[in-house]
Amino acid sequence: MTEKTIPYKIYLEEEEMPKAWYNLRSDMKNKPAPLLNPGTGQPLTAEELSPIFCEELVAQELDETTPFIEIPEDIRNFYKMYRPSPLVRAYCLEQKLQTPAKIYYKFEGNNTSGSHKLNSAIAQAYYAKKQGLKGVTTETGAGQWGTALSMACSYFDLDCKVFMVKVSYEQKPFRREVMRTYGASVVPSPSETTEVGKKILAEHPGTTGSLGCAISEAVEVATKNPGYRYVLGSVLNQVLLHQSVIGLETHAALKKYDIHPDIIIGCAGGGSNLGGLIAPFMGEKLRGEADYRIVAVEPASCPSFTRGTYAYDFCDTGMICPLAKMYTLGSSFIPSANHAGGLRFHGMSSTLSQLYHDGYMEAVSVEQTSVFEAAEQFARVEGILPAPESSHAIRVAIDEALKCKETGEEKTIVFGLTGTGYFDLVAYQKYNDGEMDDVIPTDEDIAASIARLPRVE
Amino acid sequence: MTEKTIPYKIYLEEEEMPKAWYNLRSDMKNKPAPLLNPGTGQPLTAEELSPIFCEELVAQELDETTPFIEIPEDIRNFYKMYRPSPLVRAYCLEQKLQTPAKIYYKFEGNNTSGSHKLNSAIAQAYYAKKQGLKGVTTETGAGQWGTALSMACSYFDLDCKVFMVKVSYEQKPFRREVMRTYGASVVPSPSETTEVGKKILAEHPGTTGSLGCAISEAVEVATKNPGYRYVLGSVLNQVLLHQSVIGLETHAALKKYDIHPDIIIGCAGGGSNLGGLIAPFMGEKLRGEADYRIVAVEPASCPSFTRGTYAYDFCDTGMICPLAKMYTLGSSFIPSANHAGGLRFHGMSSTLSQLYHDGYMEAVSVEQTSVFEAAEQFARVEGILPAPESSHAIRVAIDEALKCKETGEEKTIVFGLTGTGYFDLVAYQKYNDGEMDDVIPTDEDIAASIARLPRVE
Repeated sequence: MTEKTIPYKIYLEEEEMPKAWYNLRSDMKNKPAPLLNPGTGQPLTAEELSPIFCEELVAQELDETTPFIEIPEDIRNFYKMYRPSPLVRAYCLEQKLQTPAKIYYKFEGNNTSGSHKLNSAIAQAYYAKKQGLKGVTTETGAGQWGTALSMACSYFDLDCKVFMVKVSYEQKPFRREVMRTYGASVVPSPSETTEVGKKILAEHPGTTGSLGCAISEAVEVATKNPGYRYVLGSVLNQVLLHQSVIGLETHAALKKYDIHPDIIIGCAGGGSNLGGLIAPFMGEKLRGEADYRIVAVEPASCPSFTRGTYAYDFCDTGMICPLAKMYTLGSSFIPSANHAGGLRFHGMSSTLSQLYHDGYMEAVSVEQTSVFEAAEQFARVEGILPAPESSHAIRVAIDEALKCKETGEEKTIVFGLTGTGYFDLVAYQKYNDGEMDDVIPTDEDIAASIARLPRVE
Repeated sequence: MTEKTIPYKIYLEEEEMPKAWYNLRSDMKNKPAPLLNPGTGQPLTAEELSPIFCEELVAQELDETTPFIEIPEDIRNFYKMYRPSPLVRAYCLEQKLQTPAKIYYKFEGNNTSGSHKLNSAIAQAYYAKKQGLKGVTTETGAGQWGTALSMACSYFDLDCKVFMVKVSYEQKPFRREVMRTYGASVVPSPSETTEVGKKILAEHPGTTGSLGCAISEAVEVATKNPGYRYVLGSVLNQVLLHQSVIGLETHAALKKYDIHPDIIIGCAGGGSNLGGLIAPFMGEKLRGEADYRIVAVEPASCPSFTRGTYAYDFCDTGMICPLAKMYTLGSSFIPSANHAGGLRFHGMSSTLSQLYHDGYMEAVSVEQTSVFEAAEQFARVEGILPAPESSHAIRVAIDEALKCKETGEEKTIVFGLTGTGYFDLVAYQKYNDGEMDDVIPTDEDIAASIARLPRVE
C-alpha cells in the first residue's frame, strides 16, 4: 500500500472494534509481584480485597493467565459513543519538522472526560452495577479521573462520591462543575464527612489536602457504607486491562494499512495509558513475534522509572493501601510543582515495573518547559490543544523525529495522545507569560524518601 | 437497510468528503437583499468592499449564481485534520426518552476551537494568505470565533489580531490563553491602540466594552494597516458558504444509509451554523425535490426571528458596518444576560432571513433554564458536554422526540450540535446551583429599539 492512501485519520469500523480486553500478564514469564497486605506482609487474597473492590474487578486484578477477557455488551455499546478513537497520521507535524519519519498518534481526548480515563471508568461502573451496588467512591486530584467516573456512573445510574483534593477543588472549579453536571457529589478533601478527614483537619487545620488523604476518605466511605465500593483510575492491573482497548485499536488500525511501528511512545504516571497503549505490541515482543522500541516518558520532576528504585511500597501517601512492588521514589516523596497532575505519582504500575526491570522497555524523563514547547508546536500544526501529560509523549516523539531528520531514517513513530488541555490553561498561561520553570529533585531528596520505604520480605 | 446496521457514529471516508461548497443562494428565486452602503443607501460594490475584506471573499460574498465553489486543496487538507465530523445516532438519548423517534446529531465540537467556527476561519485565512496579506483582524465576544481564527492563522503563518470584548477578556482568561498559544495577539476592547478605542474610553471611562466597539477597532486596524483585512465569523454569505460543509457531510452520511430526515433543527445566532447545516436540504426543498421541516432555534432573550422585524439594519451596535436586510431586533437592542454568547446577536443572516420570510423554515424561541435542563439530560446519556448555544437545538430536538412519543410517530430528527461547553462552566455552575433565571425582553423594549432602525428605501 502506498503512503498516499493512508488517510489523515484512521477510524476502525464498529465491527472492527475489540470485543475482548487483552491481559498482558498472560504473556509475561516473570509475572508482576503480587499486592501485599501491609499488616501481614502476605499476598492479598480475593476475600481481603472484596470489601474494598467490586468482585469481578478483584477477579480481574488477580487473573494472571487468561489472555483475553470479553468486554460486556453494555460496555461495548458505551464505547461506541466515543470510540473507536482515531489513529491520526501527523502529516502536518512531519512537514513542519521536515522529517522523513512517519508519525502517528492515538488520540483519546475526544470525549467529555478529556482523556482515556473513561475506558476504565465505564468498566468499573458496569461491574459495580452488575453486583447490585448503590454507588462507588473515589478520589481525584486534577479531576480527569473523577470526571470520567461521574460520566460512567451517570450512565449506569450509580451514586458517585468524589473526594477532590481541596486545593484542586478550589483552583479547578470547572472540573468540579462537570462532575456535578453528571450528578456526582464532589467533596473537598480533607472533609468533616469522614473520621479520617476530621482527624487530619484537627491535626493540620487549614491544610489544602493531598491525594493520599483523599484516598483514605474515599476508602473509609466505601467500606463503612453498605452497597458501596472504592474504585481507582490507574496503577492497578484491572485498569491496565481495560485500557488495553487503546492498544488493541491502535494495533488493528496499523495492521489495516500494513504499517509496522518502530517506536511506541507513551507518557507514564501510574501507567494506565502507557500500559494500555503498548499491551498488544508488548505481547508480540514477549512472544518473540515482533520487535519494537517501547518508550515511557515521565516528568523530570517525578522520575520514578529513571531515578526511583524497584521495591515494595505503599500506593498512597497516606500509607493505608496495599503494598505494590514497583519503581518508586518512595511514598513520602513530594513531587515539585508540575502542571501535569496526572503524572505526579511516586510509583508505577507493577506490570510495567516488571517489564522495565526485565529490559523490555526504555524510560526517559523530560523537563516541563521543553514539554510545553512541544505542546505549542504540536497545537499550532495539528490543531489539537494537548494535555500537559500527553505532551510528554509529544516531546519525545518530536525528538525521535528530529533524530531521523539527522540520520535520514524513515522510522515509524506511534505515540499516545491521552487527552486535551482545556482545563490546563493556567499552565499554558504560565508558559505563554514566560513564567514556567523546571524544578528537579536532588539526589538527596530522592534518597531521603527511598530510605523511608517499608521493610518487606 | 435495517436499523441495526446503522452505527452509533457515521463517518464519511476521506474521499467522500465534499470537494466544493454549496452556494444556497444559487437555488433561491428571491435572492437575499444586497448589503447597502450606509452613506449612499446603494448596494455595496466589490470595489467598496475590497479595502475591508479579502478579494476572493468579496467575490464569494456577492456571488448569487454559482451553485458550487471548489474548496481549495490546502483547505481540504486542513479539513482532514478534524473532519469529517461524525453524524451520531443518539441511541442512548432515544432510549432514555422512550421515544419511537430516531435522533441524529452532527457534532462539530471535536476540534480545539470547540465549534464549527473553524470551517470558515480556515477558508478566510487561506484567501488572506493567497492574496499575500500579512494578517487579519477580528473581534470576538465569547471567544470561539477568535480561537478558530487564531488556529487558522497559525496554520498559514498569518498575523492575527483579535479585539476581545474587555469583560470577556477578563472573565474568560482560558479562551484568551488558547488564542495566545496559537500565536494571536489578543487586545481587550476598547483599547488605547486605536482612534475609535481612545475615543470610546475618553467618553466612557471604565467601560467593559461591547461587540460593536470591538468590531470598530478591528475594522480600523485592518483598513489603516497595509497588508491587513478584516474577517467576520457569522452573518455574511461567504461564511454560510463555507459552513455548507456541515450540511453536505450530513446529507452524504444520511444518504449512505438511506435515511430521510423529517425535521432538521439548528440553533441560530447570526446563522452560520444553521445556514451551513440546512444548505443542501433547503436546496432540495427550493428545487422541489424533497420536503423537510426546518427549524431555527433562538434564545427567548434575543428572539430576532420570532419577535423581530424584517428590515434593513446595521450588523453592529457601533453602526459603522454595511446595512443588511434581515430579521432584527434593532442594532440598539441589548440582549439580557444569556450564557449562550454566540446567540446574542440582534440580527440574522440575510439569506436565512429571506428564506424565513418566504416560509421555507420555522423558528422557535426557548428559555435558558429549559435549555440547560436539556443540556444536562443530553450530557448524562450521550457523554458530550454541549455548548449552551448547541443546547438550544437539543431542547427542541427533545421536545419533538417527546411529541413523537405521544403520537407514536417514528420521525427522523437531525440536529446540529455545534460545539462543546468546556469554556462555559460558569453558566453550568449557575444552573447546578439553581441560580439561573430567564429574562425575556418586553414588547416595549423591542418596539423601542426597532423604532431606532435606520431609514432605508
